[in-house]
Amino acid sequence: MATLTKNDIKITRTETSKISSIDFNNLAFGQVFSDHMLTCDYKDGKWHKPEVVPYGPITLDPSSKIFHYGQSIFEGMKAYKDNNGDRFLFRPMDNVKRLNLSAKRLAIPELPEDYFMEGLKALLDVDQDWIPTNEGSSLYIRPYVFATGNGFHASPADAYKFIIATAPSGAYFSGKVNVLIEEQYSRSANGGVGFAKAGGNYAGQFYPTQLAKDKGYQQVIWTDDTTHEYIEEAGAMNVFVRINDTLLTSPVSDRILDGITRKSILQLAEAEGIKTEVRKVKVSELVEASKNGSLKEMFGAGTAAVISPISGFGFRGDDFEIPEQDQSFASQLKNRIVAIQTNKAEDPFGWRVKL
Amino acid sequence: MATLTKNDIKITRTETSKISSIDFNNLAFGQVFSDHMLTCDYKDGKWHKPEVVPYGPITLDPSSKIFHYGQSIFEGMKAYKDNNGDRFLFRPMDNVKRLNLSAKRLAIPELPEDYFMEGLKALLDVDQDWIPTNEGSSLYIRPYVFATGNGFHASPADAYKFIIATAPSGAYFSGKVNVLIEEQYSRSANGGVGFAKAGGNYAGQFYPTQLAKDKGYQQVIWTDDTTHEYIEEAGAMNVFVRINDTLLTSPVSDRILDGITRKSILQLAEAEGIKTEVRKVKVSELVEASKNGSLKEMFGAGTAAVISPISGFGFRGDDFEIPEQDQSFASQLKNRIVAIQTNKAEDPFGWRVKL
Ligand SMILES: Cc1ncc(COP(=O)(O)O)c(C=O)c1O
Ligand SMILES: Cc1ncc(COP(=O)(O)O)c(C=O)c1O
Repeated sequence: MATLTKNDIKITRTETSKISSIDFNNLAFGQVFSDHMLTCDYKDGKWHKPEVVPYGPITLDPSSKIFHYGQSIFEGMKAYKDNNGDRFLFRPMDNVKRLNLSAKRLAIPELPEDYFMEGLKALLDVDQDWIPTNEGSSLYIRPYVFATGNGFHASPADAYKFIIATAPSGAYFSGKVNVLIEEQYSRSANGGVGFAKAGGNYAGQFYPTQLAKDKGYQQVIWTDDTTHEYIEEAGAMNVFVRINDTLLTSPVSDRILDGITRKSILQLAEAEGIKTEVRKVKVSELVEASKNGSLKEMFGAGTAAVISPISGFGFRGDDFEIPEQDQSFASQLKNRIVAIQTNKAEDPFGWRVKL
Repeated sequence: MATLTKNDIKITRTETSKISSIDFNNLAFGQVFSDHMLTCDYKDGKWHKPEVVPYGPITLDPSSKIFHYGQSIFEGMKAYKDNNGDRFLFRPMDNVKRLNLSAKRLAIPELPEDYFMEGLKALLDVDQDWIPTNEGSSLYIRPYVFATGNGFHASPADAYKFIIATAPSGAYFSGKVNVLIEEQYSRSANGGVGFAKAGGNYAGQFYPTQLAKDKGYQQVIWTDDTTHEYIEEAGAMNVFVRINDTLLTSPVSDRILDGITRKSILQLAEAEGIKTEVRKVKVSELVEASKNGSLKEMFGAGTAAVISPISGFGFRGDDFEIPEQDQSFASQLKNRIVAIQTNKAEDPFGWRVKL
């Protein structure tokens, strides 16, 4: 099959750019959207060529299956710009492959990899001025696929839309994150869709997260739905725990998203001489480690949140504080990964992709 | 709070009815849609008055949360018309209440009950000619709510749309149903959203159901995700098993939808002198009962599928056939419930609501 390159992609430019109305010094996360988007339709049994078009409304029949059956998947990536104006992505092929893993599990036809990658490149050429350069800001990239096909029958749609939209964004969390370890509600089932970035995984977390927020926590740490004895991950982050000088994180499974930040952190930590262990972590172990002082750090890791230090956790009505560390793994690793992402350091891993 | 009545609802009629193009003698399920729909918007912190409008396209921003986070819920109901042209609903308030149960779990603002019920009545006045009268046909009613609010942040939307659309429909299944008992994939987690009619619950079933179809089964019977030892329910039906002369069905839980057909069947069976037991049913018990001849019947029960006899089940590569019964509970109970729904019999339970 002939591969598509970004120059094959039809581009329709907006007549009125919104860029001058955006305050790039005060960016929230994912609230303002760049001028263009990539769109690509699946119908008649195949994906049709992607196009760059002005960011604008989508019109659907009321019986479109996206409204009824949650048949949707997404990805989250970022584009960075350095002081020379060069533009970079971080491990983008991992997002392409994960989107197709999610697609398969949700019975969505897999997307040709070049439609995604070359489409993204074309979009980021057109909207290159939308990539922020301020420290801590970046262009958040949202690739997503949803069912457009019609009908009130709980079965896969016969038509889909793939879109990439982008949003210049600041930090996901403001400040440290206080988490609640959840024992009643669950994020995902054994044999379910937890490992996929399926839309429905997120909506299911909103209510329990709201309850946690009402109690003063910003995030829920999910535990396994069978015993609730093991920590799994957070809403949009994998979780790391430092006990003495070892960095622990749960193995991924069909319940846990295989985060690109998570696996990068594991490799970076090794390279920095930090001992890592990938193994199940019991809630009781956390509690004990907190009590005897060996719990030094906890942090979340994800594209949106980068590395977000966790200041404490609540469990069964008790609150466990995690004291600040002078030599924090979280800051050390965050500095490393951000330096690689933004072209401020060598990239021995070959993760950075120059546009 | 003043209650809304159907006469308060603004009605905008279509200029061109599609009804003459519909072949009411050859209706599929949920494929053609009536002329009008009810719409109702949540914004600025409240639900605004519903209106009846022509059935037609919905326009949304690409960042609408429905596309990203699966924040959607729905219901399934039917309207029936008898030989006098009188129109009926079946236990509609149970759907209203279940929609709000689902809403709560999905962090969607609950809908005023009268907006739903009076809105539905207004819609069914306008589209009364769309209710089929042929045996086995009815007007399938699809109330649903989805997140319209914008933003690439995994948190509840600030705007929603409630719609009721309807589709004159024939049978959901054609013929008997052969099922596969699933041990690898799961439908829902303990503490998850399985008890809610959340969009994401359905998309997650498509791929495993496709695999089952490829093996010659029409439906999957889900088992609990922890042990896979107990049968739970099917894609859009609760499941009943007849062992000797006792009718068994699983208790509902936070993993299983509390079906209105299921609970009606339990009451009808009691009234018909059929012994019922609500208890967990082991897969191994089914296999053994099939082998020793005590497994007399299995059937699915749901609004769309009414009562659908199951002709056999596959489990670990073996197929277990369920022989036809002369005195089948499935047909006895189906006849009873359909007679009540369609005003062909007394309704001692007060389930039928005349429009
Ligand atoms: C549920 C969940 N876990 C973990 C992550 C982190 O994954 P990644 O590092 O690939 O962004 C995300 C965000 O993408 C997520 O949604
Ligand atoms: C998962 C699931 N189980 C069971 C049912 C049956 O419920 P009811 O009888 O209320 O239609 C449905 C259909 O609504 C369903 O979607």
